Amino acid sequence: MKNVVVSRLQLPLQDEIDTEIVERKGTGHPDYISDAVSEEASRQLSLYYLKEFGHVLHHNLDKTLLVGGQANPRFGGGEVLHPIYIIISGRAITEVNTEDGKVLVPVGTIVIEAAKRWLRENLPHLDTDKDVVVDYKIGRGSADLVGVFELGKTVPLANDTSVGVGYAPFSTLEKVVYNVERKLNSKETKSKIKALGEDIKVMGLRLGNKIKLTVAAAIVSSEVRDAGEYMAVKEEVKEVVEGVAREFAPNHDIEVYVNTADEPSKGIYYITVTGTSSEQGDDGMTGRGNRVNGLITPMRPMSMEAAAGKNPVSHVGKLYNVMANRIAQKVVEEVPESKEVYVELLSQIGRPITDPLVATIRVKGELTPTLEKRVKEIVDEMLDTIPQLTKEIIEGKVQLF
Amino acid sequence: MKNVVVSRLQLPLQDEIDTEIVERKGTGHPDYISDAVSEEASRQLSLYYLKEFGHVLHHNLDKTLLVGGQANPRFGGGEVLHPIYIIISGRAITEVNTEDGKVLVPVGTIVIEAAKRWLRENLPHLDTDKDVVVDYKIGRGSADLVGVFELGKTVPLANDTSVGVGYAPFSTLEKVVYNVERKLNSKETKSKIKALGEDIKVMGLRLGNKIKLTVAAAIVSSEVRDAGEYMAVKEEVKEVVEGVAREFAPNHDIEVYVNTADEPSKGIYYITVTGTSSEQGDDGMTGRGNRVNGLITPMRPMSMEAAAGKNPVSHVGKLYNVMANRIAQKVVEEVPESKEVYVELLSQIGRPITDPLVATIRVKGELTPTLEKRVKEIVDEMLDTIPQLTKEIIEGKVQLF
Amino acid sequence: MKNVVVSRLQLPLQDEIDTEIVERKGTGHPDYISDAVSEEASRQLSLYYLKEFGHVLHHNLDKTLLVGGQANPRFGGGEVLHPIYIIISGRAITEVNTEDGKVLVPVGTIVIEAAKRWLRENLPHLDTDKDVVVDYKIGRGSADLVGVFELGKTVPLANDTSVGVGYAPFSTLEKVVYNVERKLNSKETKSKIKALGEDIKVMGLRLGNKIKLTVAAAIVSSEVRDAGEYMAVKEEVKEVVEGVAREFAPNHDIEVYVNTADEPSKGIYYITVTGTSSEQGDDGMTGRGNRVNGLITPMRPMSMEAAAGKNPVSHVGKLYNVMANRIAQKVVEEVPESKEVYVELLSQIGRPITDPLVATIRVKGELTPTLEKRVKEIVDEMLDTIPQLTKEIIEGKVQLF
Amino acid sequence: MKNVVVSRLQLPLQDEIDTEIVERKGTGHPDYISDAVSEEASRQLSLYYLKEFGHVLHHNLDKTLLVGGQANPRFGGGEVLHPIYIIISGRAITEVNTEDGKVLVPVGTIVIEAAKRWLRENLPHLDTDKDVVVDYKIGRGSADLVGVFELGKTVPLANDTSVGVGYAPFSTLEKVVYNVERKLNSKETKSKIKALGEDIKVMGLRLGNKIKLTVAAAIVSSEVRDAGEYMAVKEEVKEVVEGVAREFAPNHDIEVYVNTADEPSKGIYYITVTGTSSEQGDDGMTGRGNRVNGLITPMRPMSMEAAAGKNPVSHVGKLYNVMANRIAQKVVEEVPESKEVYVELLSQIGRPITDPLVATIRVKGELTPTLEKRVKEIVDEMLDTIPQLTKEIIEGKVQLF
Repeated sequence: MKNVVVSRLQLPLQDEIDTEIVERKGTGHPDYISDAVSEEASRQLSLYYLKEFGHVLHHNLDKTLLVGGQANPRFGGGEVLHPIYIIISGRAITEVNTEDGKVLVPVGTIVIEAAKRWLRENLPHLDTDKDVVVDYKIGRGSADLVGVFELGKTVPLANDTSVGVGYAPFSTLEKVVYNVERKLNSKETKSKIKALGEDIKVMGLRLGNKIKLTVAAAIVSSEVRDAGEYMAVKEEVKEVVEGVAREFAPNHDIEVYVNTADEPSKGIYYITVTGTSSEQGDDGMTGRGNRVNGLITPMRPMSMEAAAGKNPVSHVGKLYNVMANRIAQKVVEEVPESKEVYVELLSQIGRPITDPLVATIRVKGELTPTLEKRVKEIVDEMLDTIPQLTKEIIEGKVQLF
Repeated sequence: MKNVVVSRLQLPLQDEIDTEIVERKGTGHPDYISDAVSEEASRQLSLYYLKEFGHVLHHNLDKTLLVGGQANPRFGGGEVLHPIYIIISGRAITEVNTEDGKVLVPVGTIVIEAAKRWLRENLPHLDTDKDVVVDYKIGRGSADLVGVFELGKTVPLANDTSVGVGYAPFSTLEKVVYNVERKLNSKETKSKIKALGEDIKVMGLRLGNKIKLTVAAAIVSSEVRDAGEYMAVKEEVKEVVEGVAREFAPNHDIEVYVNTADEPSKGIYYITVTGTSSEQGDDGMTGRGNRVNGLITPMRPMSMEAAAGKNPVSHVGKLYNVMANRIAQKVVEEVPESKEVYVELLSQIGRPITDPLVATIRVKGELTPTLEKRVKEIVDEMLDTIPQLTKEIIEGKVQLF
Repeated sequence: MKNVVVSRLQLPLQDEIDTEIVERKGTGHPDYISDAVSEEASRQLSLYYLKEFGHVLHHNLDKTLLVGGQANPRFGGGEVLHPIYIIISGRAITEVNTEDGKVLVPVGTIVIEAAKRWLRENLPHLDTDKDVVVDYKIGRGSADLVGVFELGKTVPLANDTSVGVGYAPFSTLEKVVYNVERKLNSKETKSKIKALGEDIKVMGLRLGNKIKLTVAAAIVSSEVRDAGEYMAVKEEVKEVVEGVAREFAPNHDIEVYVNTADEPSKGIYYITVTGTSSEQGDDGMTGRGNRVNGLITPMRPMSMEAAAGKNPVSHVGKLYNVMANRIAQKVVEEVPESKEVYVELLSQIGRPITDPLVATIRVKGELTPTLEKRVKEIVDEMLDTIPQLTKEIIEGKVQLF
Repeated sequence: MKNVVVSRLQLPLQDEIDTEIVERKGTGHPDYISDAVSEEASRQLSLYYLKEFGHVLHHNLDKTLLVGGQANPRFGGGEVLHPIYIIISGRAITEVNTEDGKVLVPVGTIVIEAAKRWLRENLPHLDTDKDVVVDYKIGRGSADLVGVFELGKTVPLANDTSVGVGYAPFSTLEKVVYNVERKLNSKETKSKIKALGEDIKVMGLRLGNKIKLTVAAAIVSSEVRDAGEYMAVKEEVKEVVEGVAREFAPNHDIEVYVNTADEPSKGIYYITVTGTSSEQGDDGMTGRGNRVNGLITPMRPMSMEAAAGKNPVSHVGKLYNVMANRIAQKVVEEVPESKEVYVELLSQIGRPITDPLVATIRVKGELTPTLEKRVKEIVDEMLDTIPQLTKEIIEGKVQLF
């Protein structure tokens, strides 16, 4: 049995707390881009390691810096003047000693290609050939596969003393904020509102029953001919936001604000050439945006660990944050008495990753021996699926930011 | 009157919660260095702006990336092979139009000098002339001081819709973790344990009454002649840690672990040439380490905002996090009935920074009209001191990480 | 009349000198790539300036550094491990004050796109998406077009005190060396010898009547399955070289050496993934390769000026080197008595570029007043065509390296 | 016997040719700085290799790029706004397999320290702590010292097929140009003219008996209080130049022009904060300035090889250029009948460096069998001193630019 502590969550339900603040940074936000670039670099490198060596070798690419460029958007057009600069940093195994001799890993070309592919697929108005410079500074290391028979046969060991946290379910405001961004950045919305860029940030505030949503959404300059069209696009965005909010918070008063920093009298509008504010000076960094549940929730448990870019085999800063959220969800789903669940997983360097030093599960609701037993079983079961989680992460099926 | 909401904190006292996890990254940790470099760059630039123009002009330098170098430590010596690479990024006013014409600001030389001075003063075993490359990528902007009579006469306006959080008092574990690092990195300890480097990370776990402290402390290779001396230094460090822990947690069981990743049988010890793991591949970034109270507390409210490097005049991500903590401390000090206080300050872009959209104060203890009134008075008063806080930050008197 | 000095060339004809050494670096050589990137960047920027402002504004991009990457070629395949890094540096006008206000120039995206397009078109085995990082460091300046009525109406003024040199005709060895590389890098040869890369260097030595050609030609690893095929390719290359040599030097003994550093017994062959040695550590710089006549001729007059990347309007380091060669050719063509002609053009900062401080023309052959007069007329005429030369350079019609 | 060809130099004496152009770039010129940084990096690395391994291992650092900064000089003061950026590139042995195991070489810290030391010692007004960023991109390689008994016992083999050229003696104009710069940059002159910076370029033109010297000399802004003092400094510089010219060309008409681009009516003066134009946008590169004899002589034989930064053991591009000049000097000194001597040394990859493929010596004067024999003896003797030349280069005793 794992070391699992189940206790009572001595907190009101999140929906019943007077005030709540929730934020989500969307696809084109500089911090999101940094996370995505780190993670895609790690994922493609993992796939390469797997294919060539049968195992994901050590790496850690969770330090991507995006330095904003300079652009000149104007209604109906505009151009990028100076490209966005992205530097992927970290370390990775570049030399592998196998029984057939030393094999070199094309780390540089893999991470650059991974970054550009993500940018191309997710930021359609950004020309990766000229609007962005992708560079990297990755420390090189070597690994020895000769005679390492046990590799991959045993559960990996935790690489650090670190903590992962998670909770479930989402509060009403969390559902609203998360889904507003997902809807705005969906293919469906994009096909309707062609001028809507990808850099969308949603800040939600709830005071009792009132929800106030502040949305900053980059508008693509080439798709709006003038201020009138811009204003019409903002109105369309507002309607989409209100629709999502009404769906997820049917009993709340909703106020929606879009691009409040606009000052039409001074000719200031939130237009961009590329759909991201990165084009004009906004910088970003891995690990500075959404947590693994997709949100920033200052009043809920959060880890400072960046999940993006870390190796998915043994880095608890990545695995435990995802797993803590999964465990919380599972408990909420399978144990109807649990109204809300908070989970912390603490690793100890050197222990098998499936066996944390301690897993603390706080459950809102009456704690009975039966419930406690059921929860422990779920935790046990879930922790054993970490190797499966590694696989899902490598396949790109796990949300990490 | 400001918009202040006082409510009851519906939580057990932190010391009474079963499990608690707290972390602090010390002076020489790559994330701490990144924070410090961002902040010193901002501070020196602010001082320059003040001196030359009478006002702190806009800037934001909260994106420093530290890419680890390569080193070759060995007992009794060793050397840095490839320097640490630090890149300070962000944006700043570089051109100022005054009544006497256009004035250029030496932003590049200011930030580089600021970074090197901090490194020199805080990492005595690092040679800034050769062990580190400091570069920058700072977007340039211009400001117009002509006819801006009102500048500095009115309260600055919030630059973003953002939230600052804080709480008081520290729990027992928080006190222990914080003070262990401060003690280890104090001049007093350094003069006694000459081999102790600055890269010290403290992870504290409390399970009921038991506290387990895991300390990773870089040892300076030139100051230990062999494994025996190294082990003796570890023992000295352990004693200092235990002393601090006993002082701040006299009624707890204390376990201390130092450098648990050492494997003497394989010749693996945590030795460094420079006193920081940055020398050998560990990377760092602004905003990835301690919050403004000096700690990482996954189970307490935290903001994802990096305080370091942001401009201290109007950036709520910096000011509100510090102020939320100050308010919490003030309430705890002045209102004896309040056992624990949580504070959230939410800005709205364009409002005076002294007047947040909402300030929510959650107080542990019986809420009476008198107490509520007293709390509101304190909040009002404290918020009006934000311009004074700006001054203190510029003078380097405020802890930000 | 221009200040033209005609004198007798007191030298034997080049073909009659005992020893002669001539070198040409071909398309894929790191120095050639650096020249080409500088020049394409300048050319595309010039075209943009012309289109937007009616004039080519000031710039100077003659400092491109190519840092070699790391690759892993092997017979039948291989890959780039770490990309080639290209940094374009110099300065350019980025802000233009026009009567309609300030206009910003997309210098960054123009130069990056120009570089990548050239690479794509000229190095077919190099994937510009992942095998190369193109960055730049270009100093920014501003220009004022308001009220500059005379711009473009008058002849530009020389921007420096500098010298351009040229001569004609090519010696036999020069013709051989030049044409060997051109032939090897021709579409015709490439379609026949698919494995032949672009990095081709030809060193020619003539001792009396004997010509020895040393050719280093990068072979594309994916196009040769084994050492046998590689050797067959070398043989094909050798035959092409011999064919060209026999054509241009029918009366000389010819010896041809291809890839002499190969050591089959140690498995050392000159194979590359991309067709250029830049992929594996060979660095390059603008201005370190061929002179404007396409050759390096240590025993003939040469200028140290890099022509590539300099602005084509007023930079004498570019214009005078081309013009000196053109004048020499023209004199040789039109004045049958002149067997060989050497030309030096010396600018003085501030003089119209069509009016050098002095043009010295040294003619092999009997100097008569008639000849002298004819030569002076040709020089006069040719110098006045410099503005036309500017146009040809911008159109990419002038060989510069 | 070496393969030496002696022939008659069929040229007039340089002093008797009608026109002559000679240039020298002085200590603080961006190209000179680039050469010096490359060479110092190579020299310090060579010294390290020698000390640690007994041999100078392979390296090649002849690609330094200096990107100009931005500065704001003004009479009586000024400051650097954005530092000069220097990147040292090339490749070097970073790992050495010895009988005691693998040894790592601190290449990064060595080259950075070497560069900064040179800058500090030679550019006293430049603050290396903040006015310059020194970075590097050096490809890493490994060497095997196990069982290499013969290393250092035999003559090194040429690493390339390359040519070195030289001549003697200096013409009158060459002596003037060279000594003018040396005098201006001497300690003696600097102690007299405190405002004189190090970036001094001398362009000499001789038309028959008339010498015109154009000197561009950076003046240090903090050392001149106003335009009047600046003009006085220019006058002092002019007097020094005239003095040197009269000493070396007593029978010539001398005209001296200093800082001819000044336009006092527009407030344009050649003032700098640091004594080098590098501070404000002038870029530099290794190998783009003086040849190994210290001059740029477009009408004399020149090699395009950069001598600076290349390894001094086997790189013929470095060794043969120095040696060709030494041979020419030696012949002129020891064979009174030889009025002028031109030397070309052609290597062949793989031959001992002391035994070039061919050495051609062209002597002005009557060729007799005795003279020819004497010349051959000198060449033979001199070529055998190449290993000694390596030593002198490492000790910093050989002029290379």
